[in-house]
Amino acid sequence: MRLQSGASFGGDTLAICAGPCSVESAEQIEATAKAVSAAGANVLRGGAFKPRTSPYAFQGLGVRGLELLRTSADRYGLGVVTEVLDPRDVAIVARYADMLQIGARNMQNFSLLREAGESGKPVLLKRGLAATVDEWLMAAEYLLVAGNDNVVLCERGVRSFDPATRNLLDLSVVPLLAELTHLPVIVDPSHGTGVARLVEPMALAAVAAGADGLLVEVHPDPASAVSDGAQSLTPDAFTAMTRALAAVASAVGRRLPAASLAA
Amino acid sequence: MRLQSGASFGGDTLAICAGPCSVESAEQIEATAKAVSAAGANVLRGGAFKPRTSPYAFQGLGVRGLELLRTSADRYGLGVVTEVLDPRDVAIVARYADMLQIGARNMQNFSLLREAGESGKPVLLKRGLAATVDEWLMAAEYLLVAGNDNVVLCERGVRSFDPATRNLLDLSVVPLLAELTHLPVIVDPSHGTGVARLVEPMALAAVAAGADGLLVEVHPDPASAVSDGAQSLTPDAFTAMTRALAAVASAVGRRLPAASLAA
Amino acid sequence: MRLQSGASFGGDTLAICAGPCSVESAEQIEATAKAVSAAGANVLRGGAFKPRTSPYAFQGLGVRGLELLRTSADRYGLGVVTEVLDPRDVAIVARYADMLQIGARNMQNFSLLREAGESGKPVLLKRGLAATVDEWLMAAEYLLVAGNDNVVLCERGVRSFDPATRNLLDLSVVPLLAELTHLPVIVDPSHGTGVARLVEPMALAAVAAGADGLLVEVHPDPASAVSDGAQSLTPDAFTAMTRALAAVASAVGRRLPAASLAA
Amino acid sequence: MRLQSGASFGGDTLAICAGPCSVESAEQIEATAKAVSAAGANVLRGGAFKPRTSPYAFQGLGVRGLELLRTSADRYGLGVVTEVLDPRDVAIVARYADMLQIGARNMQNFSLLREAGESGKPVLLKRGLAATVDEWLMAAEYLLVAGNDNVVLCERGVRSFDPATRNLLDLSVVPLLAELTHLPVIVDPSHGTGVARLVEPMALAAVAAGADGLLVEVHPDPASAVSDGAQSLTPDAFTAMTRALAAVASAVGRRLPAASLAA
Repeated sequence: MRLQSGASFGGDTLAICAGPCSVESAEQIEATAKAVSAAGANVLRGGAFKPRTSPYAFQGLGVRGLELLRTSADRYGLGVVTEVLDPRDVAIVARYADMLQIGARNMQNFSLLREAGESGKPVLLKRGLAATVDEWLMAAEYLLVAGNDNVVLCERGVRSFDPATRNLLDLSVVPLLAELTHLPVIVDPSHGTGVARLVEPMALAAVAAGADGLLVEVHPDPASAVSDGAQSLTPDAFTAMTRALAAVASAVGRRLPAASLAA
Repeated sequence: MRLQSGASFGGDTLAICAGPCSVESAEQIEATAKAVSAAGANVLRGGAFKPRTSPYAFQGLGVRGLELLRTSADRYGLGVVTEVLDPRDVAIVARYADMLQIGARNMQNFSLLREAGESGKPVLLKRGLAATVDEWLMAAEYLLVAGNDNVVLCERGVRSFDPATRNLLDLSVVPLLAELTHLPVIVDPSHGTGVARLVEPMALAAVAAGADGLLVEVHPDPASAVSDGAQSLTPDAFTAMTRALAAVASAVGRRLPAASLAA
Repeated sequence: MRLQSGASFGGDTLAICAGPCSVESAEQIEATAKAVSAAGANVLRGGAFKPRTSPYAFQGLGVRGLELLRTSADRYGLGVVTEVLDPRDVAIVARYADMLQIGARNMQNFSLLREAGESGKPVLLKRGLAATVDEWLMAAEYLLVAGNDNVVLCERGVRSFDPATRNLLDLSVVPLLAELTHLPVIVDPSHGTGVARLVEPMALAAVAAGADGLLVEVHPDPASAVSDGAQSLTPDAFTAMTRALAAVASAVGRRLPAASLAA
Repeated sequence: MRLQSGASFGGDTLAICAGPCSVESAEQIEATAKAVSAAGANVLRGGAFKPRTSPYAFQGLGVRGLELLRTSADRYGLGVVTEVLDPRDVAIVARYADMLQIGARNMQNFSLLREAGESGKPVLLKRGLAATVDEWLMAAEYLLVAGNDNVVLCERGVRSFDPATRNLLDLSVVPLLAELTHLPVIVDPSHGTGVARLVEPMALAAVAAGADGLLVEVHPDPASAVSDGAQSLTPDAFTAMTRALAAVASAVGRRLPAASLAA
């Protein structure tokens, strides 16, 4: 599956999606896009419509955030993946994004799935917080039945009894899904662990297990991030990660996108 | 909190909501309404818009289902609680129902919560499949912040490692929530166990733990139900349950709605 | 099943086992035995050999603890249930106790189960922290196959993702086990919740669900307890609990042991 | 940490422990030892005392199994790791094994831990089925406090709600433990997934995440294995796995034991 920007999911080349949890400002997203592009990412991620546990937390910049994402992504030749929360927002998000993200909390938001399916846009479907693989594939079926087969699955960790990590990243679904579906599978080690220092080793593990790509949170200044700072990599840490990743990718017959090979 | 039909949540009298998983036909909903009313229920439940794991499963009768619910409920003096899945359907569901149900899969569907909050209608907010009590209360906050304080929480079981039951009914949240919030709490032993024979004992346990009411699946012919037959009570089993319940309710200073006291 | 002291498990009369987490001193166990006996308990619980997560935590008084338990229990006509951790200690624990407790961490400690089974003593088998009902029954089978059918199962909560309670008390196993086995089932709401204020409502719920008895932590001064103070009832709170319990028990056709009926 | 046989845990060279779930016969263990040695394993695993959920399942060959393990391991220059279930068996198992395995079900069997700690033998401590990282480290402390610091931790998957795999392999503990303890950490992808086809990708992922070694079930004829056949690799599949592993190990600065480098 290939985005308009050229990034592909499911081939020999990995898809590396990186960017902040939330789009906060033009400066922040521009700095991030520049850095992740230089380090070899080919898709820019960032939240404009944010699903926040509390109604009193920052809810995202909305359409202004979409504009900022698009502008910075275009400048660096990146694709854009961003979350859509409301079926009524699918059209506007699809206007700016190359790929619609359905978040974990909405994996079984069936009216959102139908609307995203009918948009024809590529969709990144994250696994629900306690979704079985069967339920996840059935949620994907809501997209496929609408005639949209540009679907990528994203493992992002499930609920666990151990507070040592934010979620429990379930990498076994990577080879398991390869037996059950033709859909590409990427991994989000940022939400999957909630701890920045664990992101690189789990990114390497994901690729070793056969993942078709990664979704990683990167922020120019994690300590001042409005959301998810604790799990965000600095641009330097992200660059180090892609270097380590190149070797593991090669060991399993994969490669990073062109820019990062150059890096 | 009191519905227009007179049913109240949170006082000495329990709210007993009963009915089929899905509204299937005029005959089915009429027979159920008659039976549960006679047995002492004061609210009719039934799904017109159904959240189904598979897009190929029965999706509900939609507006026709709402009409059937309203007609049968009015005939027997019952309130109506029914699920709404899509923010664009809140207005139409609110036209027919006394209480909007937000299902477990949508507990963190924030645009649906906002729309339901703004409708001003009483809302039944089910706990998510793996939601912590804190997350559940924050989801309720999305309703409250819209100025709608007619919110009732419904425990319906959480995900577990043991396939012996469909979910793991967490009755400890009943007394726990009583310490944390003024919102009434009811319990759904049907989804909470997934096994019809376990519904009565868990209903009794819920009331003993302090629940303000119950949400119970009742079907005139569970074996032929289009959904959730395995956890649905027959009208006779439901009648037996309310009789057993009356004694336990009395032991903890509560009582069943008037009709069932007469029964 | 009946202990030598007269307490029975599985009949119309509930078994009420109460006492401190750990036996700490003669004064402490004597005061507790007196109080719980007066409130209607018929079995004294207390740990002499303690399974502690950390090797640096209090490990129990050992045989001296067993002596103190026996002495106080005899003074008030109570049975004694206490945990055994090591197969080599079964004989000595059996000399003092009426019932051997196998704790949650040892549910699948098969050499301990065999030894306990061969002792011929009644055994209280707690559910493992993440044991399915099938695994629990298979663990009981290790006792039964040794010719010992004086086995009582004890639900004490399972691991959960929600830190709001220490464990998640799974009351649905009470009616479920009634369908699967002839063995009596009791419930431990103290470990099941980890919060003293939740013990009474969950005790009431357990009995409403059909439990054959309770295992409750009571300490004369919970704030100074060497272990589990947060979930221990004061004697006054325990007395209040048994009073509330008497009404619920009656509502489901059960009764408390004689002493507490008199109370 | 180095076994007497020369295998080391925690250095640049990985420890590769392989063999059947249960020792079944001289022929079976001999064929397995030969094959895994040729493929580059440096430690032979196999159960002589088996912890079985059911008392009616095969319980292992006992001391005869230990003898067979030792004989075959010596012939191929392998170390021996095997489980001990009962504190009274520590001495006999220690006579034959280079490393005592404490299984998941016994992670908090504190009398077994003390006895194993006092034996002075290297100990492989598997994570409990629902143990937090903190509890696991505290269990290790029972070994360390006895003066035995030859302890290796083994992640083997935890309980999950998804029946798609037998357990949920939690690879994030590999980098997490590297921050919390000096103890080496290995991974068991066989129990961690329960599915033979998932073993190789998860073994690669474990090494990419930083694991110090692997524990893998290999059986000359998985279809006829008396236990765990579904998750056992054939010798050919194991050989293929070590080849794939060599490339990933090299990518993260590690190497396989000498024999397999030669392979």
